[in-house]
Amino acid sequence: MIVCKFGGTSVASAEQIKKVASIVESNPARKIVVVSAPGKRTPDDIKVTDLLIDLADAALMDGAVTEKLAAVMARYRAIAEGLHLGEEICQIIQADLEERLQADASNVELYVDAIKASGEDNNAKLIAAYFTSIGMPARYVSPREGLIVNELPERTYALPEAYTQLAALAKTDEIIVFPGFFGYSASGVLRTFDRGGSDITGSILSAAVRADMYENFTDVDCVFSANPKVVNCPVEIKEITYREMRELSYAGFSVFHDEALMPVFKVGVPVNIKNTNNPSAAGTKIVSKRATTGRPVTGISADSGFSILYVSKYLMNREVGFGRKLLQILEDENISYEHTPSGLDDISVIMRSTQLSDEIEARILRRVKEELYADDVEFRHGFSMIVIVGEGMRHNTGLAARAASAISKTGANIEMINQGSSEVSLVFGVMQKYENQILQALYAEFFATVTA
Amino acid sequence: MIVCKFGGTSVASAEQIKKVASIVESNPARKIVVVSAPGKRTPDDIKVTDLLIDLADAALMDGAVTEKLAAVMARYRAIAEGLHLGEEICQIIQADLEERLQADASNVELYVDAIKASGEDNNAKLIAAYFTSIGMPARYVSPREGLIVNELPERTYALPEAYTQLAALAKTDEIIVFPGFFGYSASGVLRTFDRGGSDITGSILSAAVRADMYENFTDVDCVFSANPKVVNCPVEIKEITYREMRELSYAGFSVFHDEALMPVFKVGVPVNIKNTNNPSAAGTKIVSKRATTGRPVTGISADSGFSILYVSKYLMNREVGFGRKLLQILEDENISYEHTPSGLDDISVIMRSTQLSDEIEARILRRVKEELYADDVEFRHGFSMIVIVGEGMRHNTGLAARAASAISKTGANIEMINQGSSEVSLVFGVMQKYENQILQALYAEFFATVTA
Repeated sequence: MIVCKFGGTSVASAEQIKKVASIVESNPARKIVVVSAPGKRTPDDIKVTDLLIDLADAALMDGAVTEKLAAVMARYRAIAEGLHLGEEICQIIQADLEERLQADASNVELYVDAIKASGEDNNAKLIAAYFTSIGMPARYVSPREGLIVNELPERTYALPEAYTQLAALAKTDEIIVFPGFFGYSASGVLRTFDRGGSDITGSILSAAVRADMYENFTDVDCVFSANPKVVNCPVEIKEITYREMRELSYAGFSVFHDEALMPVFKVGVPVNIKNTNNPSAAGTKIVSKRATTGRPVTGISADSGFSILYVSKYLMNREVGFGRKLLQILEDENISYEHTPSGLDDISVIMRSTQLSDEIEARILRRVKEELYADDVEFRHGFSMIVIVGEGMRHNTGLAARAASAISKTGANIEMINQGSSEVSLVFGVMQKYENQILQALYAEFFATVTA
Repeated sequence: MIVCKFGGTSVASAEQIKKVASIVESNPARKIVVVSAPGKRTPDDIKVTDLLIDLADAALMDGAVTEKLAAVMARYRAIAEGLHLGEEICQIIQADLEERLQADASNVELYVDAIKASGEDNNAKLIAAYFTSIGMPARYVSPREGLIVNELPERTYALPEAYTQLAALAKTDEIIVFPGFFGYSASGVLRTFDRGGSDITGSILSAAVRADMYENFTDVDCVFSANPKVVNCPVEIKEITYREMRELSYAGFSVFHDEALMPVFKVGVPVNIKNTNNPSAAGTKIVSKRATTGRPVTGISADSGFSILYVSKYLMNREVGFGRKLLQILEDENISYEHTPSGLDDISVIMRSTQLSDEIEARILRRVKEELYADDVEFRHGFSMIVIVGEGMRHNTGLAARAASAISKTGANIEMINQGSSEVSLVFGVMQKYENQILQALYAEFFATVTA
């Protein structure tokens, strides 16, 4: 059995949904279909989810929702008409939206969530109706039937019993159309997953039914070995391990949300990233173990927007608990960090700059000085992290040298190097302005065909 | 004013003490002399400190101390005779030792400490008597006169008031001979410093009197840029910053105890490592800022006996507090660590293996699994850390590449790289068996004269 998930652009219009039907029909193993809300049809278009957020805001502000509701319905109506579905499904969707708008708004976040999630929910109903109308027996299944998530206030995740209950879907004869992005808590509260939420739903279902494959349909042919906006025509990745995919998830690899990998990774269901608009392309497979290629490096990613907290204190390494206390101060500010390279008397904590503000920085600096008696402490901003990833790096002795050498030839200074004992990744910290140049240099070093 | 400290081999015999006198006499600025207990005269000799430990053990076991006491006295007597000092000083020393042996032994550690410390204390009395006898007016000063240390049970350190009180010594006309290695708490308890203790006493006195220079006399001409037991005729270091010295203190650089640097570092008194047996050699100066040399690297040190705790957990980097909790578990076992390189989903904690045992490892592994829900956790042993140090590394773009390249040419795999944002050091983790080979390769890369 295959679970397939179609992203927003894949279900943005009648034309796109026809492609989806034809993909699902072409392989009888494709029994569970997870769908997003209709996305953008053109780069300037507005996603249904954004229209729904507008609608919810209007409802909360002054109750004048008619126009906003009409905008949402216009999208569904256009799709329904294009699929020759008639008025009935539109009435179901309109009634559903009106009911959500009337709901209790005492918890604003939950109220908005319920309206947002209608995008996926109603699109699933519409697509199930369409499949049935063209002779592909299909059934809309609500996340109420098993996708049980935790209660507030922690961020949403599926409970273990969700997997047990959803396993029953494996026995279906009809095609199941399941909305992505949300589940229900045991007390009946609709809760949405964070960004990339439909990918997570597909992953949970794939794990629950122990699918042979989780096909993730999007609008690109594959995952590239480097960001194609920076590197010209990068090599396509045919196979990549879960671990490599995770390490690359910094940036330029946002095609598949890394949190969504967890459920399938745990039970070993392979993922296939495919293109709705070019379904015959093999795509990129994410697997536990992959065949070796000639290259030690699978991909290179880069991301900007990092800050470094630098702390030095004489005889720091003699002080049991120094690092722990420093990290505790960051934890008190709810700051997560990426790496903590250190010398004997200094430690640098690398974190995303978005987590900082002048006020937060001042608080941290004061605490580090007053509580840890540091000699020096300061924040430095404007760094990029470049990550080189590959299972083949583990036994490749000259790789760090090649990478460092390629970087130094650009004239950039290496501010930080971090290589853990896992050796699947090698991280370089550099000044932001060198990021693209270095990505190009590293790509040339590890991927470009040698020309004599 | 110069504070000079003479180590155990520099005061091991009458002949050596004559050299000390001649060194002190040759520069009238040398007003404070810190001395160790008599050390080894030949490689097979026994240090007085070890004879004293034997004596203390005998006293604690059965009280039969006559023979052990005679062995200690024989050393002093030989020195006194060689210096033509007569019997009086020997009687003073014998009486002092007998008094210490009669002391309350209810706290065994303090009892042993007091007997051990007599080695420095009595040697200072003897040397002061000798200086005076040859027309160099000198006065023995007891650490009771100002070297106030903290009370039990924390490890010994000098209290701030020690510096205030000892500052008075700056006004001396005579040469002051001060025993290294110990101080007294406010309640009158004699407490010894950890290893390298006489270096610490010299450093405290230098800081207290704001000396122009702290001369540390030992039995080597200088600090070498690499361990001369591994690298053939390494370059001598003429000047090195406090920070470089600290970063190099892993191994092969044990000539000056790194904790002893702290007091002089704080007030900026330069240190000069010199050789008692070759006082005209310039030695190595440890300073705040040094003149630049042609080389980016000042020294390379290496040390074996490291273990790595490897922990992996899917989505670790999303979990605020993971690293802190992991370090807390190590702290609960009172384990200090060197570095914590990390990937997105894994973290390695590098620590000295001597801190571990099967039992401790099992406890840590269990807690990391049960409390942090780690996917994988294991200890790996048999690693060496190679540290390349130099203030000039900061702005040298190709250095990491050169180092990694030199290592990879030995065929060794780089298990870990750690470069903090301070950029004064670059640390490589490698398998122990490659340590010497890599040290030689790195030395050749950064120090050897280029031969075409």
